[in-house]
Amino acid sequence: MVKEVSQKPWGGRFQEETNKFFEDFTESISYDYVLAFAEIKASLVYAKALFNAGLLTSEELSLLEKALLEIEEEIRKGAFIFRKEYEDIHMNLEKALFEKVGEIAYKLHTGRSRNEQVVTDLRLYLVEEEKQIKKLLLEFIRETIIKAEEYFEVVMPGFTHLQHAQPVLFSHWIATYAEAMRFHYERLLDLEKRLKLSPLGSSAFAGCGFPLNREFMAKELGFLAPHPHSVLAVSSRDFALEFVFILTLIMLDLSRLCEELVLWMSQEFSFIDLPDSLCSGSSIMPQKKNPDAAELIRGKTALVLGNLLQLLTLFKNLPLSYNRDMQEDKPPLFQALETTKASLKMATLLIKSLILKKERLENLLKEGYLLATELADYLVTRGIPFRKAHHLTGKIVLYAQKRGKRLEELTLEEFRNFSPLISEDIYNWLTIEHSLKRREIPGGTGRKTVKNYLEDFKKWILKEENP
Amino acid sequence: MVKEVSQKPWGGRFQEETNKFFEDFTESISYDYVLAFAEIKASLVYAKALFNAGLLTSEELSLLEKALLEIEEEIRKGAFIFRKEYEDIHMNLEKALFEKVGEIAYKLHTGRSRNEQVVTDLRLYLVEEEKQIKKLLLEFIRETIIKAEEYFEVVMPGFTHLQHAQPVLFSHWIATYAEAMRFHYERLLDLEKRLKLSPLGSSAFAGCGFPLNREFMAKELGFLAPHPHSVLAVSSRDFALEFVFILTLIMLDLSRLCEELVLWMSQEFSFIDLPDSLCSGSSIMPQKKNPDAAELIRGKTALVLGNLLQLLTLFKNLPLSYNRDMQEDKPPLFQALETTKASLKMATLLIKSLILKKERLENLLKEGYLLATELADYLVTRGIPFRKAHHLTGKIVLYAQKRGKRLEELTLEEFRNFSPLISEDIYNWLTIEHSLKRREIPGGTGRKTVKNYLEDFKKWILKEENP
Amino acid sequence: MVKEVSQKPWGGRFQEETNKFFEDFTESISYDYVLAFAEIKASLVYAKALFNAGLLTSEELSLLEKALLEIEEEIRKGAFIFRKEYEDIHMNLEKALFEKVGEIAYKLHTGRSRNEQVVTDLRLYLVEEEKQIKKLLLEFIRETIIKAEEYFEVVMPGFTHLQHAQPVLFSHWIATYAEAMRFHYERLLDLEKRLKLSPLGSSAFAGCGFPLNREFMAKELGFLAPHPHSVLAVSSRDFALEFVFILTLIMLDLSRLCEELVLWMSQEFSFIDLPDSLCSGSSIMPQKKNPDAAELIRGKTALVLGNLLQLLTLFKNLPLSYNRDMQEDKPPLFQALETTKASLKMATLLIKSLILKKERLENLLKEGYLLATELADYLVTRGIPFRKAHHLTGKIVLYAQKRGKRLEELTLEEFRNFSPLISEDIYNWLTIEHSLKRREIPGGTGRKTVKNYLEDFKKWILKEENP
Amino acid sequence: MVKEVSQKPWGGRFQEETNKFFEDFTESISYDYVLAFAEIKASLVYAKALFNAGLLTSEELSLLEKALLEIEEEIRKGAFIFRKEYEDIHMNLEKALFEKVGEIAYKLHTGRSRNEQVVTDLRLYLVEEEKQIKKLLLEFIRETIIKAEEYFEVVMPGFTHLQHAQPVLFSHWIATYAEAMRFHYERLLDLEKRLKLSPLGSSAFAGCGFPLNREFMAKELGFLAPHPHSVLAVSSRDFALEFVFILTLIMLDLSRLCEELVLWMSQEFSFIDLPDSLCSGSSIMPQKKNPDAAELIRGKTALVLGNLLQLLTLFKNLPLSYNRDMQEDKPPLFQALETTKASLKMATLLIKSLILKKERLENLLKEGYLLATELADYLVTRGIPFRKAHHLTGKIVLYAQKRGKRLEELTLEEFRNFSPLISEDIYNWLTIEHSLKRREIPGGTGRKTVKNYLEDFKKWILKEENP
Repeated sequence: MVKEVSQKPWGGRFQEETNKFFEDFTESISYDYVLAFAEIKASLVYAKALFNAGLLTSEELSLLEKALLEIEEEIRKGAFIFRKEYEDIHMNLEKALFEKVGEIAYKLHTGRSRNEQVVTDLRLYLVEEEKQIKKLLLEFIRETIIKAEEYFEVVMPGFTHLQHAQPVLFSHWIATYAEAMRFHYERLLDLEKRLKLSPLGSSAFAGCGFPLNREFMAKELGFLAPHPHSVLAVSSRDFALEFVFILTLIMLDLSRLCEELVLWMSQEFSFIDLPDSLCSGSSIMPQKKNPDAAELIRGKTALVLGNLLQLLTLFKNLPLSYNRDMQEDKPPLFQALETTKASLKMATLLIKSLILKKERLENLLKEGYLLATELADYLVTRGIPFRKAHHLTGKIVLYAQKRGKRLEELTLEEFRNFSPLISEDIYNWLTIEHSLKRREIPGGTGRKTVKNYLEDFKKWILKEENP
Repeated sequence: MVKEVSQKPWGGRFQEETNKFFEDFTESISYDYVLAFAEIKASLVYAKALFNAGLLTSEELSLLEKALLEIEEEIRKGAFIFRKEYEDIHMNLEKALFEKVGEIAYKLHTGRSRNEQVVTDLRLYLVEEEKQIKKLLLEFIRETIIKAEEYFEVVMPGFTHLQHAQPVLFSHWIATYAEAMRFHYERLLDLEKRLKLSPLGSSAFAGCGFPLNREFMAKELGFLAPHPHSVLAVSSRDFALEFVFILTLIMLDLSRLCEELVLWMSQEFSFIDLPDSLCSGSSIMPQKKNPDAAELIRGKTALVLGNLLQLLTLFKNLPLSYNRDMQEDKPPLFQALETTKASLKMATLLIKSLILKKERLENLLKEGYLLATELADYLVTRGIPFRKAHHLTGKIVLYAQKRGKRLEELTLEEFRNFSPLISEDIYNWLTIEHSLKRREIPGGTGRKTVKNYLEDFKKWILKEENP
Repeated sequence: MVKEVSQKPWGGRFQEETNKFFEDFTESISYDYVLAFAEIKASLVYAKALFNAGLLTSEELSLLEKALLEIEEEIRKGAFIFRKEYEDIHMNLEKALFEKVGEIAYKLHTGRSRNEQVVTDLRLYLVEEEKQIKKLLLEFIRETIIKAEEYFEVVMPGFTHLQHAQPVLFSHWIATYAEAMRFHYERLLDLEKRLKLSPLGSSAFAGCGFPLNREFMAKELGFLAPHPHSVLAVSSRDFALEFVFILTLIMLDLSRLCEELVLWMSQEFSFIDLPDSLCSGSSIMPQKKNPDAAELIRGKTALVLGNLLQLLTLFKNLPLSYNRDMQEDKPPLFQALETTKASLKMATLLIKSLILKKERLENLLKEGYLLATELADYLVTRGIPFRKAHHLTGKIVLYAQKRGKRLEELTLEEFRNFSPLISEDIYNWLTIEHSLKRREIPGGTGRKTVKNYLEDFKKWILKEENP
Repeated sequence: MVKEVSQKPWGGRFQEETNKFFEDFTESISYDYVLAFAEIKASLVYAKALFNAGLLTSEELSLLEKALLEIEEEIRKGAFIFRKEYEDIHMNLEKALFEKVGEIAYKLHTGRSRNEQVVTDLRLYLVEEEKQIKKLLLEFIRETIIKAEEYFEVVMPGFTHLQHAQPVLFSHWIATYAEAMRFHYERLLDLEKRLKLSPLGSSAFAGCGFPLNREFMAKELGFLAPHPHSVLAVSSRDFALEFVFILTLIMLDLSRLCEELVLWMSQEFSFIDLPDSLCSGSSIMPQKKNPDAAELIRGKTALVLGNLLQLLTLFKNLPLSYNRDMQEDKPPLFQALETTKASLKMATLLIKSLILKKERLENLLKEGYLLATELADYLVTRGIPFRKAHHLTGKIVLYAQKRGKRLEELTLEEFRNFSPLISEDIYNWLTIEHSLKRREIPGGTGRKTVKNYLEDFKKWILKEENP
């Protein structure tokens, strides 16, 4: 009698066998199997809610719970076989449940729709992923701050337009990436308000026809509240889009860091070295040591950016409520998550392992007129309006350049030919340390400021790691 | 003597005239002129900070303030001429200031870099834009809720896969869009934490060399705090990316609404009418009445989505700190803002003006076996496990279809041929109102539930409109 | 002694073991294994070229050839194991070769770089894929033309703005998609000129240091010519970008078709039916019959569009020549190919299986003032300038609408109240067939024109299928 | 009487005034005015076709032609005022025509639809733009080849992974960009087949109801043929998408070039200098000389990439035939064209102006073990299989590195400690010129090869410039 029930959950009305190619084309189990634990978790809660509403006996509940936990265990052990002919994770589990408890399995679908199941699973899954991403962000941040402290004394030329601009502490420069990631971390915290909403009880879109307790289900699942609107609950994936947007921001910042690592590893820059164990060589040029990991992170940024686009485009012009197009949200979502996690981990390893070539940086500081701004500022303190001081400094730089001299190598006389307002104390200004000292403004590159900044940052990390 | 100072703020070091095509290619005043008021506001605050730090006399401060306010007034009146040869908004205003107060104008640039100016202006500008977008969202939401109440009694077929699925209150269905926009509204509120940070004092990227009070400047500008890191402050536009991401989400939801409006306006659907004043005709087919506005909003969604991509792509692989590439953030940002504001306004007008064809919807409810789920649920209450009940209902639907009957037109005998568990009360279940009544679950389409939902929503609107 | 050679092709200079996570992060064999046959083909040709240049003995050549063919056979049988620790397809095959023939295997890399190998493999692979896509395009086109002929007699309302506009032959309307695909087919033919270029001999980027015959290798590989520039040959993937762009165009057109199929399957439209075997049902609503395949194709369009973006973004700001970022070209490329092939196949099946509801369409033609243009054109033939005729017709339509009459149901008197120029023959004009007859212009919807068009199209198909 | 005709071309059926905001929202004249000349050209041809079909008298034709040419002249002079209340370019011109010739103007719309007009205008417009882009490509190519010849003698380190790899002629390296652009040039030639098709005669989508000569119109407009299918003709913008795709490829290659220019301008690389007239300075750092133009081109690449996406996304899920969404194709199309043209021009100027720092490059060649491949190849010629030779060379490089020696500075004894197969002639191999000489393979960096390549390229340019 049971056999009479078709393989498909929706087979009753249908008179033809499903076309084989159609089956392959529409299946999602090959990638949505990762939702299995979320599906089981949600089913356990749903079963309890059915029981509470008198739609399951306590015996039925026990049987279902036991069977669901068994299945979970089988999956964990790798003993569970997911089948394409059962389309998706929902039917694969329902089938397995049926094999264990017979028709009682079918009661679990009372008032429940795959529309709400899949979005509940996705939300549960992303809650776990979000935890992992936050953890990886903290690790990246911690290693960056540690590296900043390790090389606290080092000064490097700061860049704008990839041109030497002003001296800056290496620790200040590299901490930029930690700070950027802290912002993304906080974006994730904000997302939680929208992510941790329970669709259960929305059914296909109109709301469940049985009086289940949505508050109860939300709470049991670890969500903050039931989703406020049954149609929106099944129609929207904005929580996932926002998640992938944040992943994209993370990847973009990693791509910027990696661009710098690649530059710094070049023979021309030679700012850093990376251990052999994190580099590749060439199949033809034996002398090569390539920063492949950094390049790959840049490349993978393109993937995640495309994943975001895939998700956004999916929803353009889509009428309410559920449409099958939405099944395609999973491949880009999963790819974005995997790629970002691996890239964060890799970038953390790169930061942790990089070795600064201090001598090279020290030598560079002597070139390039990095202290020209100091000279201009000096002139300002002597009463020259900044724009004029800037202009005057430009001329002095040009003069020095032509003579192959650094600014501090000009004689006082030479200086005074440009402005009689310049006096002996100019040479105090034209040192790296003086330039840093002048920037003890909050957020700036002064040594004390940066030291305090790093200390505060470590406290923040500790707090987040031990909430 | 003043003439000696070149037109360019950076001319001192340069020996050749700027190439004319280069000048055209690099200018931004043709679009960044909209930042003029933000630039003036920031300059007024910066002048005060310079005065507080003893870098301006009180007289100089007064002169600068007076001149800045005059310029503001001229711009407001349309009497100010922006010039391409002055590159950007910053230099246009500095030039104007110089014409009014002479060399004192040049003091305003003391310790200040365009790198921090432009990002400060952008933030100030976006704070104002964000207010406007929030206001437009509230208007959209309010009109949607009003429309929902206007047609509170109307039931329509709810759709999944663009197929009739279950009956749903029109008010519930249309409120989906209000709820979606409420989520975006809250995304904007979250953004404010990251948007309202003051870069002033970051200078080129290393921090200002003069001891300006960053807290003071942040407060005066209406920001929450100074930006915590000088390099990140000038290197990142993540606040703008996040803003445009939210705009994209708004547009995507508008595109979904407009897709439905276009469908509903078709001869086949005929769910709604729109006033002639919001439609266009055809240049060749005189009978046409086209929902052009809705189509254009769909089209404009593609623009905003592309703007987001433009902004994201811009930052891939960009080393720290400022690079000129970043100038190109403005065209997509401004296009996204203008397009979204206009689209929100247009969509609000469409919602407000749409006329529901109630009779047509009433007739539709009789077709399409919308109550099949009710029958299945009924069987569940008679003890049949859902999946079997579903299967059985499928067969009954097929049987009815073949005979051209609606479910409620089947005789009790016919029903009982499928299952003896069915009795007379099945006919109570097979009504639209009964189906609604069964969905008085929070978030569902029950009449009381939706009524309360709308009431609560109105309270929320009131609260937001009068904070 | 052989063992001394490290696992990595580039190990000589390196002193530390490769980090395990780094190995996982950088490997590509998990997806580039599909290039195995291309790699073998290219290696066979490369070996011959080495032999011709005196760099291999005939015995060595024989050994290498035999081993390569054995490996090919093993892969074909599924007996070959690809290993992550060997990074990529190139090293996996080199290792296998070494196991078979010892050090001679190492000679195959003489003057050869992975930079040129991977791009040669990609080109060979895409040549095969391109053949398949062309074949699938022809099948889609053929089924579309067959369907057009099957329903040649049927007239439907043509749409603009999703509003009824003018009568059109169904065959003409549906053939739009065949014609669109013919354009894409021709885009592929154009691509071949750029795709079928042989990089072999480019080595890492500077050109091979041994005098290999590039013409010979190109010819043997079935390419049209050697690539003209060694640096560009290894730096560019424009041929792949162009390919994926064409795939995107194909998908966009499929998404438009599928949008129409979804519309046509709705209860409101009811233009078509699809066989049960190509539809899904609902897990909760037993009456549903959903056009899932069409929806999924729309969804998959988002994936391919994102793949294109991934590929394009990858190359932005990338300096010459090879950079490891480029490894990430493969996942989007392969996803785009697989998705497009499956979607084309599925769409062909949908076209082939769709059943037109002729009666429904016939009834629709009577509504909606589809012949209004005919009336306007009639007035033109009576000497009224078109814009005025259009305006007048607008008024007549409004008049008829208010009275619930179709245009042809108006009396001559009623017509003449609007214009005395209208006479009895107006009723000849106000028929569907007359309207078609007036459009025997090339490319138009006249019956003869479309018949000829379909005939010509079939000839073109035949020609392409049997070149 | 004429006044009776409403402002709108489609006003007849409408009873309410168009809403003012709706008018602003839907207008396109603010950007489609650039199509004015194309519209006039097409109208002149259409008028002739009407005359040939007996739908205009010769007098009417003359009047229309005269008036159209007058309007053209007014536009050219800047004396024509485009008005928003007339929506678009089509109605603006029709109105102007009416003011000149009265009701005859209305005859020009006989059988003509804006659907075909706008796509005809676009195609005509793009034909002109395509000519310009081809011209700009040729100019870029010519200047690049000239620059290559100017510095023909210079050798530079070639890069992979931004690491020094092998010596390469600067002329060969820079010519990569010329070759890339030649491929894009040929893509444009291929596009012409699809671009130069005439939609005229397609009317709204069903074909024109009057027997106009489509061949005649196509020919007069300079097109290759009439578009083969009336529905596709008005529904598709694939020709524009393909155009913008090619523009995107062009921009991507420019972004790669500009990335290199920015690198080469850095203090660390110091490969090139650019004239002051093509650089900017800093508003705060007087010593800066920034390669802003190159940075902006990178930034603008993001814009064009986004434009492509905007265009592609627009068409996803759009049913046939014309939908108003398609109006939004113009802003991204026009932005892509303007941006690419300006960027090509700017890049050409940069190439033309760049000054190579020959001494710096010469010095660099001595560092970095650029000749390691030569050593490995040498070992191959002594009978060592390449992979082993590669490995051995790696060890020698490491040995040399530790001793701070270049390869050619090792003694024969030191070499022979690694392999007794090495003899005195190794020193002949370890020179830059020998390494170049070994690469006289077609497409490679051998001096003769490159010389011939440049000669052939110049011939190709000449041929294309004088077809």
